[in-house]
Amino acid sequence: MRKIGIAVLVSGGGTNLQALIDSIQKGEINGEIVIVISDRENAYALERARKHGIKSVYIHRNNCTENLISELKEANAGLVVLAGFLSILDRELIKAYEGRIINIHPSLIPAFCGKGFYGERVHKAAVEYGVKISGATAHFVDEGTDSGPVILQETVPVYADDTAETLAARVLKVEHRLLPEAVGLFCEGRLRIEGRKVIIAEKEV
Amino acid sequence: MRKIGIAVLVSGGGTNLQALIDSIQKGEINGEIVIVISDRENAYALERARKHGIKSVYIHRNNCTENLISELKEANAGLVVLAGFLSILDRELIKAYEGRIINIHPSLIPAFCGKGFYGERVHKAAVEYGVKISGATAHFVDEGTDSGPVILQETVPVYADDTAETLAARVLKVEHRLLPEAVGLFCEGRLRIEGRKVIIAEKEV
Repeated sequence: MRKIGIAVLVSGGGTNLQALIDSIQKGEINGEIVIVISDRENAYALERARKHGIKSVYIHRNNCTENLISELKEANAGLVVLAGFLSILDRELIKAYEGRIINIHPSLIPAFCGKGFYGERVHKAAVEYGVKISGATAHFVDEGTDSGPVILQETVPVYADDTAETLAARVLKVEHRLLPEAVGLFCEGRLRIEGRKVIIAEKEV
Repeated sequence: MRKIGIAVLVSGGGTNLQALIDSIQKGEINGEIVIVISDRENAYALERARKHGIKSVYIHRNNCTENLISELKEANAGLVVLAGFLSILDRELIKAYEGRIINIHPSLIPAFCGKGFYGERVHKAAVEYGVKISGATAHFVDEGTDSGPVILQETVPVYADDTAETLAARVLKVEHRLLPEAVGLFCEGRLRIEGRKVIIAEKEV
């Protein structure tokens, strides 16, 4: 089975990128990261990519879409992974990679998602709401915000003395497991989108 | 410790009422059901109450609030439990029993809750959204719909071939455990509301 070329888009430190790199090195994902793209020039994720000999590119947010699409095409990316990417993807890009863009969101979608819910804000909202359970969601990206078909979800407990920071740290551990798992399933061709549902095929033996 | 008088308000078959009755009979709740009230004359819950020698009352929805308050007072209810009660509680009643009304909702609030999300509709929405995890929430009732402080939450998996009915059955099992647990904690005086958070005190030994 041919390896899938993976493009990782990231704005921050890139611990989810690192989780993907580690998972690929362990042979858990039938793919390889062909490019890491950031909309922040000094994102540490770019440094991580370089350390692992992965092509890394900074694209300014103002002319993101065109450059993004050309970089993705040039790198021959078959899957786009958003690993904490804060720019909104353009409709044209989403259409071009329909069913081939995976995002990780730090809550149990549809709770605490949509416009304005990113980064620490998600966890602040969860803590302030007083929920007892939160989690993470790996999902395909459609034209809405955090509204695409759900691939995987996993929960974490929320404790009475949690702050946004302590909850974020707990959820991040789950993200580091969930995102590589979702990417791995995609690269094995085991994800099928039916309407809003993602059907996960059993592993062939 | 004095036993808490519990009023159970219910519109349907009353399996959550039955779960409470069973839990009380096992000695798990420091309380007793002093009255069961339904807004449906032929709710099977009323029959369940009679079978267990519990006072049961039907109140027509059109003059619900006044009659409800007078019945609750007469029964000396210290806690009101909504176990599938479809009428909206009046502001006056909610104020009178602030912090003493517990509801069970068949989703992980704040997902699939609020106006229009009751009964099968909740599960239909969850299945159609394509979430991988749902659950149940026991919460205090405030003036909003399903918006009060969360006491307990527990999850269930959602499978690709689930219908609203199969998911409802799975969640209902969790409700039957969660509601008696929440009521038990209340009756032991272990629930403290701080803003939107419910702090659960450790069991004294």
